[in-house]
Amino acid sequence: MDVRVLRLGHRPARDKRVTTHLFLTARAFGASGAIYTGCRDPYLEESVGEVVSDWGGRFSLEFAESWREVISGWKLTGRVVHLTMYGLPLLQVIQRIREEPADKLIVVGGAKVPGDVYGLADWNVAVTSQPHSEVSALAVFLHELFGGGELDVKFEGARLRVVPRAHGKKVEELRGLV
Amino acid sequence: MDVRVLRLGHRPARDKRVTTHLFLTARAFGASGAIYTGCRDPYLEESVGEVVSDWGGRFSLEFAESWREVISGWKLTGRVVHLTMYGLPLLQVIQRIREEPADKLIVVGGAKVPGDVYGLADWNVAVTSQPHSEVSALAVFLHELFGGGELDVKFEGARLRVVPRAHGKKVEELRGLV
Repeated sequence: MDVRVLRLGHRPARDKRVTTHLFLTARAFGASGAIYTGCRDPYLEESVGEVVSDWGGRFSLEFAESWREVISGWKLTGRVVHLTMYGLPLLQVIQRIREEPADKLIVVGGAKVPGDVYGLADWNVAVTSQPHSEVSALAVFLHELFGGGELDVKFEGARLRVVPRAHGKKVEELRGLV
Repeated sequence: MDVRVLRLGHRPARDKRVTTHLFLTARAFGASGAIYTGCRDPYLEESVGEVVSDWGGRFSLEFAESWREVISGWKLTGRVVHLTMYGLPLLQVIQRIREEPADKLIVVGGAKVPGDVYGLADWNVAVTSQPHSEVSALAVFLHELFGGGELDVKFEGARLRVVPRAHGKKVEELRGLV
């Protein structure tokens, strides 16, 4: 199952760090790429590209003019999940979403989510009905979708790799691949 | 078990939205409060206070000058968990942390985490060994710590409450409490 994230309405000045965190979360938790709408942001693309280059794996990042076209195109073969505090509780719907083998587009709102998104989504999912963060909503959703298996994903072609430790820091440089 | 979050080295200009997301995540996922060091930020405190006032529950937010004093004080009776990509894998240690009944302080880094934090923490925990976001690390950690029970927490004294829906938005105003 291929999983991608669609970030709506990125605003470079205001959202730069949050959108970067969102895309790095998408990558770390097993999504294969992300698409964003709003304002194109070369700085954001560069930050994400540097992480992929150092830490490995494949993660595509694309800008799109129209969220509507991205969602319509995706729906030809895949399913759309919209993360929103107004949706149905995660634990009530996650089993059905897991069992559906089609590729998934995970839509994550920006400043103001157009009303049509709620209607176009196959599932509107609430990771709590409280206000918090699209970053945490995405992380917990992917963690539940992949059942924790995403925590062990290996990223191929990495230049750097952490060696987990009880105390302190250890990072290996994988020289053969530099 | 009381759980609080300590955010290290907040920088208002750069971190405002990320730290707000971090504290709202702490609240939504069952922590009872947060403490932060770095620069005091009235705007941050106001944003979090407004959410608590509208959406209910108790959530304390305090500024502290010295992270070292906060950690030392906490260790008199509680345990300290430091979330870091360099630590031990979440699923390897979460069971032991859950079984330890002492109150928990969850330390979350800012720009540069002082080396001593790794030594002072009872556990250094990696929510993946990949770079992503302190916001997603905290969310997934709390979700695992509370075993998903945090998703059903009721927030008392709320002025607003979402009525979960498959499509669209519905928010109730709890008039009796306005």
